[in-house]
Amino acid sequence: MADSAAMETLCGRSLVGFSDAMGDGEAFRAVNPADGAELEPAYHSATPAELDRAAGLAAKAFDSYRALPAHARAEFLRDIATRIEKIGEPLVLRATAESGLPAARIQGETARTCHQLRLFADVVAEGSWVGARIDPALPDRKPLPRPDIRSMLRPLGPAAVFAASNFPLAFSVAGGDTASALAAGCPVVVKAHASHPGTSELIGRAIRDSARHLGLHEGVFSLLFDAGTAIGTALVQHSSIKAVGFTGSRAGGRALMRAASARQEPIPFYAEMSSTNPVFVLPGAMRERAEQIAAGLHTSMTLGAGQFCTKPGLVMLPSGAPAQFAQKLAELVAGSPAFTMLNRGICSTYRSGVQKRIGSARLVASGMDDAGAGLHSAAALFETSADKFLRDPELADELFGPATLLIQSDNRNQLLEMARQLEGHLTATIHGTEQDLADYRDLLAILETKVGRIIFNGFPTGVEVSHAMVHGGPWPSTSDSRTTSVGTMAILRFARPVCYQGLPDASLPPELQNANPHGIWRMFDGKLTREAM
Amino acid sequence: MADSAAMETLCGRSLVGFSDAMGDGEAFRAVNPADGAELEPAYHSATPAELDRAAGLAAKAFDSYRALPAHARAEFLRDIATRIEKIGEPLVLRATAESGLPAARIQGETARTCHQLRLFADVVAEGSWVGARIDPALPDRKPLPRPDIRSMLRPLGPAAVFAASNFPLAFSVAGGDTASALAAGCPVVVKAHASHPGTSELIGRAIRDSARHLGLHEGVFSLLFDAGTAIGTALVQHSSIKAVGFTGSRAGGRALMRAASARQEPIPFYAEMSSTNPVFVLPGAMRERAEQIAAGLHTSMTLGAGQFCTKPGLVMLPSGAPAQFAQKLAELVAGSPAFTMLNRGICSTYRSGVQKRIGSARLVASGMDDAGAGLHSAAALFETSADKFLRDPELADELFGPATLLIQSDNRNQLLEMARQLEGHLTATIHGTEQDLADYRDLLAILETKVGRIIFNGFPTGVEVSHAMVHGGPWPSTSDSRTTSVGTMAILRFARPVCYQGLPDASLPPELQNANPHGIWRMFDGKLTREAM
Repeated sequence: MADSAAMETLCGRSLVGFSDAMGDGEAFRAVNPADGAELEPAYHSATPAELDRAAGLAAKAFDSYRALPAHARAEFLRDIATRIEKIGEPLVLRATAESGLPAARIQGETARTCHQLRLFADVVAEGSWVGARIDPALPDRKPLPRPDIRSMLRPLGPAAVFAASNFPLAFSVAGGDTASALAAGCPVVVKAHASHPGTSELIGRAIRDSARHLGLHEGVFSLLFDAGTAIGTALVQHSSIKAVGFTGSRAGGRALMRAASARQEPIPFYAEMSSTNPVFVLPGAMRERAEQIAAGLHTSMTLGAGQFCTKPGLVMLPSGAPAQFAQKLAELVAGSPAFTMLNRGICSTYRSGVQKRIGSARLVASGMDDAGAGLHSAAALFETSADKFLRDPELADELFGPATLLIQSDNRNQLLEMARQLEGHLTATIHGTEQDLADYRDLLAILETKVGRIIFNGFPTGVEVSHAMVHGGPWPSTSDSRTTSVGTMAILRFARPVCYQGLPDASLPPELQNANPHGIWRMFDGKLTREAM
Repeated sequence: MADSAAMETLCGRSLVGFSDAMGDGEAFRAVNPADGAELEPAYHSATPAELDRAAGLAAKAFDSYRALPAHARAEFLRDIATRIEKIGEPLVLRATAESGLPAARIQGETARTCHQLRLFADVVAEGSWVGARIDPALPDRKPLPRPDIRSMLRPLGPAAVFAASNFPLAFSVAGGDTASALAAGCPVVVKAHASHPGTSELIGRAIRDSARHLGLHEGVFSLLFDAGTAIGTALVQHSSIKAVGFTGSRAGGRALMRAASARQEPIPFYAEMSSTNPVFVLPGAMRERAEQIAAGLHTSMTLGAGQFCTKPGLVMLPSGAPAQFAQKLAELVAGSPAFTMLNRGICSTYRSGVQKRIGSARLVASGMDDAGAGLHSAAALFETSADKFLRDPELADELFGPATLLIQSDNRNQLLEMARQLEGHLTATIHGTEQDLADYRDLLAILETKVGRIIFNGFPTGVEVSHAMVHGGPWPSTSDSRTTSVGTMAILRFARPVCYQGLPDASLPPELQNANPHGIWRMFDGKLTREAM
């Protein structure tokens, strides 16, 4: 339970710039999924007027915020991280109470969130991310001289961020979308997730305190609560918003994507929506490491109660897979404790999804359940044949929670055909020996067209926050396969190139000036260099 | 007139892979805009079955084409350029006959098209464009080890390209969209523009000959003709197509954009649609160079009969602009010969647009006209006040042809307010002294949020094909402000990042292998280097 000390700091109101919202929007309360109890205080949905004010303030803040020197933007991100760390125990208490996740997970996720903010601060402070390019003038070129042409990335404008329920910190108010948008120079309006409003408010206040402390325009950050979906939809439709980052369900993502493209001015919409993360176990690996792979799969599929977008939900098995693989996994699933789910919607969707799947695949094992007042679910292991899987597209649908589906293939071609028929996913995993990889070279080639990340002899959960990470993938796993929502490339979603032709040196942004004052990497006449001109 | 030698080589059929289409699609003929005469042969629209076959072949070609080594893709692009140059006189004759553009322009545009193909060949052969990133494993990291993570750009899949009428070579069958998609590793299906089918066929045959000569899969390139819009729409809707490049009207672009986003699998859609390219003349420049700026504007607004997406269509004047500026421009416009327009639609839209504008702004001068059988138009110079301009949004609409609108402001604030109210454009131009730039620093800041390219003391027509060029801009000038359709960054539109976690070195693409066999620039643990690991 969140204790009274944390409660006292919460006011249950949206943060509109430096003001607390005061409107009479519909009230809601967080629920502790462990026991079903409602948590204080009541949260008030933002009103349309408050939304309009938040978006308007963001538009006003854009001019000064994008003009901030890179080091000042980096300082903002670092200061937010420090303030989040300083919240300490009240944050852990509230986040565990609202999410049902254990304290160690919340602590780890807080560390990840702060690491992410600091990593973007490093990227912004270093400065080369803007992709500066300079094509010097060629006054003597025939038949026509070439003018001086320079370009670099500039921020898009105010961004809306939709927090996810399953990472109350790392994909929420100060998560990757917010960090990367702020890093790019975009003010942010966050639509909080109604599952963890108290956690959201604690983080939101840390960001607001940082903006105030550093003398930034108050519109650089706002946080809106909503019991329903009206405020989120209106936020995407608001003319001041120029880009959207979203993590959530496929239905929610598609609805907001439609709203974004139906605007008078369509805007980039980045949704990370759903993924079943197929795992291919190849013959050699199955011979050598069947039980080890089964144990790893069990850990990965039940991590965070299976409520990860990278949870392995499909396991393609080679012909002749030894019985001990499925046996081992079935034992582990059967021995799994009841899992506390994030919220009522996820819990009931998972439970009904399991019931529905019992009609289309064989239930091999299920874990313990809990009939108490909390939001509990049992792990589930299903099995089917490749034949059935290839005929029934619903078997490939995401079942968000601690369940997975084993699919037995009869031969190599069937395994490849399953790969060919996949929709887009965030990840695909291959377990194999080097010989397997040589024998299944075409599998790798197929998967390169289907997913954003291919994992070899590992498990898809655990998304590293680093430079090379891609947490994205072809439709319908995301709305825009060209982007990632995790890792430093995420900043590129919130910028566009602007070109300057013939401008005097002093009027150019520092990144494009002859002297290269920040010492960044630039493409000079097609060649990368950190030299001054 | 195109002569019989060129005619003999034309068959009037879509090119579906290595076969000529034979279906009974609706026939149409090109029209010589200089005299209104129809040109032989008749062109047959592709049938839905031919479209399906072209798209299906492209999907089949994707596997082998994306697997081609970089140097082989570069060779393909260079070979296409060589073959286009070899067509020679028949291409110039047919393109001038179909477009009404002078031979020198066609020759220049052919050179530009071939330069563009070779520039993309250089980019692909050099190889760093894939943005390779390597985060090496950290097996001893606490609390969890880091796996080896590597990523790079990979092609999206078959691309559809819609040719434009106003650049029958550089934005057509082998133009920037085709060159950048092929460079990225995407097979291309071109929807030809019905204004220049003969030119399209000549170029299409050159590309096909090259694919055949180099032993590529026939599906790497197809060319479809259509008298209407049905084939183009169906092409965007085809499930094998994974990205679209389009240059054309706002209405056409919006309709196809809707089709792209309404697909079961929405796909990236890159449309360059319309732009009025505002020019701001600041007080110092007006004092020092009024007549010179007027002469430059006249050249720019009438270049190619004003049928450039970068034609300056709005000229914002400072208060106290000397009379000789407008006088000089009016003299030049009045002395302009009749212009031959590209096709009937553009000609009639321009003529009715001029008539309509006469109702909302003052016609200061118009050029000579020609009442003959050809598609001719007269240059037109309009004038209005900033007050009227700010109240009437239609005055900012594109008038595609040799017309421009002078807008007289009363003071600095009015000039800035006009900038603030602009929609998105491809370009904005500032004429000023260094003192002007210092006095109007906020103008530059506003324009950075409104356009893709800012030109200082130059003119917007003439888009350099180089590394730093941005030919793009915020809505509605394009459908995706994050991209450019000219310059080497255009290749990025046809690729997405794919991440490889824990893969053995030999199974990685060469760009990500430890030895860095191509010697490309890579981001290693956050730092750029060309070193091997």
